[in-house]
Amino acid sequence: MSDSHSQKMILAGFIQASNCSNYTGSWRHPETDHSFLSPEYYQSIARTLELGKFHLAFIDDRLAMPSQYGNSFIDSVNHGIRSVKLDLVPVMTAMGLATSNLGIGGTYSTTYHHPYHVARLFATVDHMTKGRSALNVVTSLNDAEAQNFGLLEHSNHDVRYDQAEEFMEIAVGLWESWENDALIVDSGSGRFADGDKVKAIDYDGMWFKSKGPLTVPHCPQGKPVIIQAGQSPRGREFAAKWAELIFVIFPSLEANKRFYDDIKEKILSYGRDPAKVLVAPAIYVVVGDTDESALAKFQEIKQLAKTVDSLTLLSEVFNYDFSQHAIDEPLSDSDLESISGLRGFLDRVIGLSGTNNPTVQDFITYSGRGTLDELPTFVGSPSSVADNMQDWFENGACDGFVIAATHMPGAYEDFCSMVVPELQRRGIFQDDYRGSTLRDNLGIL
Amino acid sequence: MSDSHSQKMILAGFIQASNCSNYTGSWRHPETDHSFLSPEYYQSIARTLELGKFHLAFIDDRLAMPSQYGNSFIDSVNHGIRSVKLDLVPVMTAMGLATSNLGIGGTYSTTYHHPYHVARLFATVDHMTKGRSALNVVTSLNDAEAQNFGLLEHSNHDVRYDQAEEFMEIAVGLWESWENDALIVDSGSGRFADGDKVKAIDYDGMWFKSKGPLTVPHCPQGKPVIIQAGQSPRGREFAAKWAELIFVIFPSLEANKRFYDDIKEKILSYGRDPAKVLVAPAIYVVVGDTDESALAKFQEIKQLAKTVDSLTLLSEVFNYDFSQHAIDEPLSDSDLESISGLRGFLDRVIGLSGTNNPTVQDFITYSGRGTLDELPTFVGSPSSVADNMQDWFENGACDGFVIAATHMPGAYEDFCSMVVPELQRRGIFQDDYRGSTLRDNLGIL
Repeated sequence: MSDSHSQKMILAGFIQASNCSNYTGSWRHPETDHSFLSPEYYQSIARTLELGKFHLAFIDDRLAMPSQYGNSFIDSVNHGIRSVKLDLVPVMTAMGLATSNLGIGGTYSTTYHHPYHVARLFATVDHMTKGRSALNVVTSLNDAEAQNFGLLEHSNHDVRYDQAEEFMEIAVGLWESWENDALIVDSGSGRFADGDKVKAIDYDGMWFKSKGPLTVPHCPQGKPVIIQAGQSPRGREFAAKWAELIFVIFPSLEANKRFYDDIKEKILSYGRDPAKVLVAPAIYVVVGDTDESALAKFQEIKQLAKTVDSLTLLSEVFNYDFSQHAIDEPLSDSDLESISGLRGFLDRVIGLSGTNNPTVQDFITYSGRGTLDELPTFVGSPSSVADNMQDWFENGACDGFVIAATHMPGAYEDFCSMVVPELQRRGIFQDDYRGSTLRDNLGIL
Repeated sequence: MSDSHSQKMILAGFIQASNCSNYTGSWRHPETDHSFLSPEYYQSIARTLELGKFHLAFIDDRLAMPSQYGNSFIDSVNHGIRSVKLDLVPVMTAMGLATSNLGIGGTYSTTYHHPYHVARLFATVDHMTKGRSALNVVTSLNDAEAQNFGLLEHSNHDVRYDQAEEFMEIAVGLWESWENDALIVDSGSGRFADGDKVKAIDYDGMWFKSKGPLTVPHCPQGKPVIIQAGQSPRGREFAAKWAELIFVIFPSLEANKRFYDDIKEKILSYGRDPAKVLVAPAIYVVVGDTDESALAKFQEIKQLAKTVDSLTLLSEVFNYDFSQHAIDEPLSDSDLESISGLRGFLDRVIGLSGTNNPTVQDFITYSGRGTLDELPTFVGSPSSVADNMQDWFENGACDGFVIAATHMPGAYEDFCSMVVPELQRRGIFQDDYRGSTLRDNLGIL
């Protein structure tokens, strides 16, 4: 273990409550389990990850089908391009009840939900899981989400982060509105709780107001572990201030290292301990008995992607209809200005393509959206994959990894049975859980 | 079984995700289980009700602590007067996963949540419970709820019902946005679903807008069973139009019968089949081996109530601070005009007290709020309780009952072990579940 880390690497499973994993083509894989509408599906994944001693599973979300490409959701539905997204709270609860150590994170939007509601939901999940909840805070992405929630269009990036700041101040205030020892529950004397240890918050912001207190007593972790994924300049400031686990998508060790150094410095500048805020890049892993068999698997899985997946998901993430351009047409400056989705992705396409006006094909190629190229993919024998992970971990790129699945549940079964033992043998991943709450296990108490 | 019923009586458990049952004093009962923050508590109740062949458990809610009395929540916290309310979705999920036939209902507000969110949550719960979900639709009650959600005061009764109408139109539209046979999921051909069987709803109302479709495919029941409790004139219209299970609180067989006849007629006037909309009054049951032992239990349980419970809960339900009056002071006409909570309760106090200006003590006495008198309480041996229930059921008062608990979980354990077998022996309650979904079991397919 490198000196730069105070602990072993952390591992999270990157789950979708959907018909497909992060990789859209996954549902077309012949070994995919299609019972994505049942609790057993999610509970089985959770048990697999817990057997593999993963710190947590966290579930991504979006509040609409991809509907930007051709201004329609029909391709999303016909081709199964993330057309299904269950609400995460029932799914998280099901996963939590099937496990006893695995942390369970879910994504909720600071733009389309009121913080009182979200604080209450996640405090309840923290009680139901006995201290294993995490909240992935997102500001949402696109007009389809806005339109499901009654707005014409998604608000701009900075406004969303202003709202998110207020959202977090309220949520944290509410989680702290019951002191840890406020409950007495003495039926004999009739003293239920100490009223002096329960406080209103009387928050009066520009975007959100809330009086409080929460109707949920102090939860086992005090508050859920806060996850965040912003890579834009504003997103980084937000993450440095609020996040406890930051997940990122960068194409290389070097790009991750640059982010890692930058964010740890920012965390310090907010007066927080950088060792208590963990950074984990998302990766795919394709593992086989040998490098050759892994490569063969990888080639097979790669074939499952369709061009329509990329165009649909690019349109979704950029809140922009790519169907209005031919595939080799460069986007003009004014086209690029009307993009309002994930900034990090746009920077990546412009950076990697080496042009300020990438073509549609450049967007597909350099974003990797809808293909395995979207995330770094570590392909090989258990030893090769572990080498790769160890290299990133020990050379300042990260504190651990978020493992996305090339297919479900096979990718996690393979990872847990083949890669985890190798990481454990090398002493860079835990042999067992350290404590009972997620916060204990992440070492961020 | 009376000719007036096409089926046997239905039974629902009236649960609170709280430190107390409907009866605040319950938490002071020496046999109360205080693990109300754990999933095991709710799962154990669900299993008890399922052993007793209850059709469903449904959970009540409110989005704030009682905070109107003395303009403070301190009494609520100190005395355990409904100060705890967990979010219901994790609790419903936990109960659903611990059972296989019991229906699981939860309350969500049409005033403080967007219908897209609620439609998605409950469609997901319906999938996770394989068709056993119910949604209890409420318009919420008081300023404390409004203030937690950023508003100064709760909107007026008719506005709330106007919103609720739009809410239901959107929710039902979204539940129907995927046709039942839209999913194909053929990984070989890559055809995931039939895009022609998934529709946007493009709803553009005065209060709510939503584009759709839902990101959750058609759920096992098509939509959750809709529960409603409005007793006011406007509430009755809403229930007649939308509800499938109506729960009510009236003090006598006669009062229930009047409601029953009225609502069944209204249901018909909306072109719906009155036999497919079930009416169930809430009652407490205290059962013992003999009438005498039951009466002794009842006297003991009654003692657990405190005057502060009544004043706190009256202030909450009427959105009005009763601490501004002496206990024997009549409320003036203008005082009564500033009451904005549950209309049904106010009508009851005025009706039973025989005065248009009841005193605070009249409110306590005739509302029964905070005491066992709030609901009809059937006290006696199994045979006496069954007589009472049979009398109501066979004489046109109801289609079944919502059983509230005098203490938890003892009241349900007693009811299921003593009263249920007697009802079954008489042939007026089911010996087993008829089907796999709640809708099957309620006979309202």
